[in-house]
Amino acid sequence: MKFGVVIFPSKKLQDLVNSYRKRYDPHYALIPPHLTLKNAFEASEEDAVQFADKLRKIAGHHHVFSLKTSKISSFQPVNNVIYIKVDPTEALTELHTEINHELNVQKLEYSFVPHITIGQKLSNDEHSDVYGSLRMTKVNHEETVDRFHLLYQLENGSWTVYETFRLGRES
Amino acid sequence: MKFGVVIFPSKKLQDLVNSYRKRYDPHYALIPPHLTLKNAFEASEEDAVQFADKLRKIAGHHHVFSLKTSKISSFQPVNNVIYIKVDPTEALTELHTEINHELNVQKLEYSFVPHITIGQKLSNDEHSDVYGSLRMTKVNHEETVDRFHLLYQLENGSWTVYETFRLGRES
Repeated sequence: MKFGVVIFPSKKLQDLVNSYRKRYDPHYALIPPHLTLKNAFEASEEDAVQFADKLRKIAGHHHVFSLKTSKISSFQPVNNVIYIKVDPTEALTELHTEINHELNVQKLEYSFVPHITIGQKLSNDEHSDVYGSLRMTKVNHEETVDRFHLLYQLENGSWTVYETFRLGRES
Repeated sequence: MKFGVVIFPSKKLQDLVNSYRKRYDPHYALIPPHLTLKNAFEASEEDAVQFADKLRKIAGHHHVFSLKTSKISSFQPVNNVIYIKVDPTEALTELHTEINHELNVQKLEYSFVPHITIGQKLSNDEHSDVYGSLRMTKVNHEETVDRFHLLYQLENGSWTVYETFRLGRES
């Protein structure tokens, strides 16, 4: 089965992101809006316990941090994903690095570009149209991140939360 | 905004339940299969912190317990909900009672019938057909419950996990 590690932003930001995803993201119904800390990876159901133990320790020695968004961007030409750019702070980058180092079941294929997807699997024409109309949109938003989540994927493609990890808490 | 408290059963049981929900439950895309411990209730976003504090304490002095299913049943004539019946053990009932007592923002309208919904909002004819074909289905399944979750609802009706609470852990 597949696991992944994500941050769910505040309800306010999730609602904004969903207003775009509804039209542009076929994963809209499978998972709430999120910032991916570790991409989906394959492991057995029993592995969840040790993943959670590791993530709990990581969360314990990281601190609550601020998440800032500024604009809408795209991964083109790599792929046709449109996203809200999240400023790559040291706190976020270190959390990402440690999670991927400790749960080293896969190699990192890309450098970490923190983002919240608002559209994907668009044709080139759709991508041009949508990105053209959104690229100048300002998304000046700031909030506090105090937790992240380990998820697993069901057979229908949707994701269920296995556990929440609160930053800076003894455990 | 709305909050709720649920148990997500194992992936195996969620996948089975989704094979029915896909056809019979219009909430299929809004939330993974679950057993409701506290029905949706209205509160402000800031209240989440104190709800989580209370739920963490409750989780700390309850123990991991066994969840058993046996058959498919229906709430008719109260409503046209078809569900997998979960045996009402003392552990489950006490957890339900304490959560509803501590988060007493609403009165309990019904007695607690632990269940995992597989179909709802069916017309009377649909209900008759579907329940007629499923009522003799045996669902002999047993698993261990070691956690539950506090969720909140987004504007599009879907639910995001705020926090996980592990049973029998100091916090």
